[in-house]
Amino acid sequence: DGSLQFICGPCVIESEESIHRLAAGIGASLGAPYVFKASFDKANRSSVDSYRGPGMKAGLKILASVKKSMGLPILTDIHEPSQCAKVAEVADVLQIPAFLCRQTDLLLEAGKTGRIVNIKKGQFVAPLDLRHAADKVASTGNTKIILTERGSSFGYNNLVVDMRGLVMMRSIGYPVVFDATHSVQLPGAAGSKSGGSPEFIAPLSRAAVATGIDGVFLEVHDNPAAALSDGANALKLDLLQSLAETLRRLHAARIG
Amino acid sequence: DGSLQFICGPCVIESEESIHRLAAGIGASLGAPYVFKASFDKANRSSVDSYRGPGMKAGLKILASVKKSMGLPILTDIHEPSQCAKVAEVADVLQIPAFLCRQTDLLLEAGKTGRIVNIKKGQFVAPLDLRHAADKVASTGNTKIILTERGSSFGYNNLVVDMRGLVMMRSIGYPVVFDATHSVQLPGAAGSKSGGSPEFIAPLSRAAVATGIDGVFLEVHDNPAAALSDGANALKLDLLQSLAETLRRLHAARIG
Amino acid sequence: DGSLQFICGPCVIESEESIHRLAAGIGASLGAPYVFKASFDKANRSSVDSYRGPGMKAGLKILASVKKSMGLPILTDIHEPSQCAKVAEVADVLQIPAFLCRQTDLLLEAGKTGRIVNIKKGQFVAPLDLRHAADKVASTGNTKIILTERGSSFGYNNLVVDMRGLVMMRSIGYPVVFDATHSVQLPGAAGSKSGGSPEFIAPLSRAAVATGIDGVFLEVHDNPAAALSDGANALKLDLLQSLAETLRRLHAARIG
Amino acid sequence: DGSLQFICGPCVIESEESIHRLAAGIGASLGAPYVFKASFDKANRSSVDSYRGPGMKAGLKILASVKKSMGLPILTDIHEPSQCAKVAEVADVLQIPAFLCRQTDLLLEAGKTGRIVNIKKGQFVAPLDLRHAADKVASTGNTKIILTERGSSFGYNNLVVDMRGLVMMRSIGYPVVFDATHSVQLPGAAGSKSGGSPEFIAPLSRAAVATGIDGVFLEVHDNPAAALSDGANALKLDLLQSLAETLRRLHAARIG
Repeated sequence: DGSLQFICGPCVIESEESIHRLAAGIGASLGAPYVFKASFDKANRSSVDSYRGPGMKAGLKILASVKKSMGLPILTDIHEPSQCAKVAEVADVLQIPAFLCRQTDLLLEAGKTGRIVNIKKGQFVAPLDLRHAADKVASTGNTKIILTERGSSFGYNNLVVDMRGLVMMRSIGYPVVFDATHSVQLPGAAGSKSGGSPEFIAPLSRAAVATGIDGVFLEVHDNPAAALSDGANALKLDLLQSLAETLRRLHAARIG
Repeated sequence: DGSLQFICGPCVIESEESIHRLAAGIGASLGAPYVFKASFDKANRSSVDSYRGPGMKAGLKILASVKKSMGLPILTDIHEPSQCAKVAEVADVLQIPAFLCRQTDLLLEAGKTGRIVNIKKGQFVAPLDLRHAADKVASTGNTKIILTERGSSFGYNNLVVDMRGLVMMRSIGYPVVFDATHSVQLPGAAGSKSGGSPEFIAPLSRAAVATGIDGVFLEVHDNPAAALSDGANALKLDLLQSLAETLRRLHAARIG
Repeated sequence: DGSLQFICGPCVIESEESIHRLAAGIGASLGAPYVFKASFDKANRSSVDSYRGPGMKAGLKILASVKKSMGLPILTDIHEPSQCAKVAEVADVLQIPAFLCRQTDLLLEAGKTGRIVNIKKGQFVAPLDLRHAADKVASTGNTKIILTERGSSFGYNNLVVDMRGLVMMRSIGYPVVFDATHSVQLPGAAGSKSGGSPEFIAPLSRAAVATGIDGVFLEVHDNPAAALSDGANALKLDLLQSLAETLRRLHAARIG
Repeated sequence: DGSLQFICGPCVIESEESIHRLAAGIGASLGAPYVFKASFDKANRSSVDSYRGPGMKAGLKILASVKKSMGLPILTDIHEPSQCAKVAEVADVLQIPAFLCRQTDLLLEAGKTGRIVNIKKGQFVAPLDLRHAADKVASTGNTKIILTERGSSFGYNNLVVDMRGLVMMRSIGYPVVFDATHSVQLPGAAGSKSGGSPEFIAPLSRAAVATGIDGVFLEVHDNPAAALSDGANALKLDLLQSLAETLRRLHAARIG
């Protein structure tokens, strides 16, 4: 309907209780329906010793309980073709991780579920080249596709968001989402994990919305310093309401 | 006063008549005072055969006539320390070209004139490192400084605008301007001259304004295809009014 | 023993006949034992319509026949954890594709086979950060690890080889290989497939060997123009002998 | 004559005594004639408070005394067109600083002196685009031109040397030199000055020579920690002999 969509939630499922608390807190901050996002498994953490999540079975159960109690559509990411069908029983949106955006079988299996497929653009992929990933999904007959920007490699341990890329990605023909929290990651910059610059979440989101996009993806945590994954770049929950209001004003003001 | 400032004009002075016509056309499009920009000499064209402009003496005379007849403040760029005093007799803003933003003597001489000094950030300079250039100007006792972003090197023959950089540059303590037309240059991409992607002038301007900046710099031409310099990335004059209105709406909407 | 090692072969298995012919041709060109490389499945081709290979079962059978008849160690790449054990029955070296170099489960399963694991550095990974991938393999008790450089993202549709990275990667503590043919890819530059600059295979190989490395990885084809995958950046077989001789001379000359 | 040339000396003239001592020390280390390099003025230091050198008049006098007593050709850099004629009275090679490689008047005045002109490639210039700078010099009738690589912008505060660029630059038609010490600078990385990684001088030099170049440029100091400029990336004098020997071996071994 042209309104700005939000995809929000924690990086990883930390516990059933925390998921319900966050889902409610985000809902109250946004004051509108949104897509709830959480991962059941972080399959590509920097270090082998990092927390990965509850796993697929336990994770899907928690996500199903949020979906039922809150009435929210659910987005979660998949890592292997064999996970797609099972995850699609709960998730409304299957997300292709950025590193995996060229894995043909994963894209095909995701497409075959008939669910919406959100493809994150790899840090190594030019904006228009993401059409090949979309074509793979669309070859299954499923064109419910979202394309998400999360930054491009810019030297070492840094990402840059090329705002021209959002325009180019939109020209491919599918809705475009800006992932504001992974875009402020500093890969590898914190030794055995990624660093981040959360102070840029708000200005980058504002910029992306002003170019003209369909939605914003934000990983949110009520206590980023204690988050079990990606706390370095999470948005603090109590900043969400104000940011969302500003983004909606910019979304309305952007059309000349 | 917090309103969004505009710096507009053609890349190079093509003729006295064209300068007056453009200055008037831009004024009508903006509906408000602005800083008129034009160069008397393009000292770093890609090719030795390209048009460089009327030179300092003739160029300053034309700029003085615009200033007088239109009542507009004037911005022009300088290339050697010896030009600063003479140019300052006419120009209200002396601009340091991006390639020259580390040339100590040029920064010092510009500072000594007491005029506003607009430092364009080199494509090879990290945002916060531009403070060293500002410090050089400020060491003369002149703190009337503007910092301008015009893109960073991103591989070969391409520039990327890092919107985080605008926030970092603002933290240095001076007004920050976004140069939307040079930011869409594709250096060297057109053989013996630079190419450009003027279709990104509007979305990049919108993005930059939404991050929170003080002004926008736009090279404008009534017929970019016939421009004697940088036509590949100029904004067509008849697109200016609509763009300016959108940018002002976003400038107002950006505060959360 | 300090001599320069070679890993050579076609990108993908095109047929049993062509594999035997190439394995023999490469052996004759090198005049020494080498590791024979070929993929049974290209799981991340740009386009869904591209040839992927004979698949795991048929591919392993062909690789086993080369191994038996030629007496060469075999390297092939894996894409999912479930493939590791089966592939390890034939392959002496299991290769982790660059895009997958952060997939924890794939690294762990590869490590558990006890085979040598060759980790290609992602185009988005800083050289020293590859130690995290090596640590994942080593956590299985298997420290037979090779680290391979294949270029870093440098703007769009281009890669750059940072020769400092080879030195940094060596400091991690495992042998380092330079993949000279993927390093000259131009990702996405040929529309629905990757382009390449095979004229740089030789100078980049020479440079890498001069920095001090352990081996060179080269995809070789007797007719690159007709190759079913990555022909744009393959080394023509009849150039291999001369290149190998030069690289061996440089390898000997590099020590000061 | 096909042998590898060396351009060596300190970054800046610190004193007449130190210049003579270094010129002799470098000569002893190289055991062959070389081009002696030193700057009389560092016109683009990061900070306005940094040491700049003795200035043109005093500097040229010192360089003339080295030239006379040691019989060495002299290279020094120029910053403004008006300096060219005067500097050419002493210097055999006039060097265009990287930041200034697009300044038309500087290139033309340097060309008009009839001296050899060494153009350093800007960190923001694609290798083949340097031909435009060479064309500007050649338009004066002077084709005694050298092209020097000193790294390309790679994210913030970092440079990468693209070894393909050396091959491309050679294809322009002039001798190509690799500046190994500025290539290991980390611009702005040390707060108010540039940092550096001198441990990469040797491997990058080896790599560049193996690609096939005409000369190596090295800033040398007997005590880098006490150098008045660019000490962070200077080569320690006592490492020069061994490095030069290795580079000559590689230069001989590179031809297949």
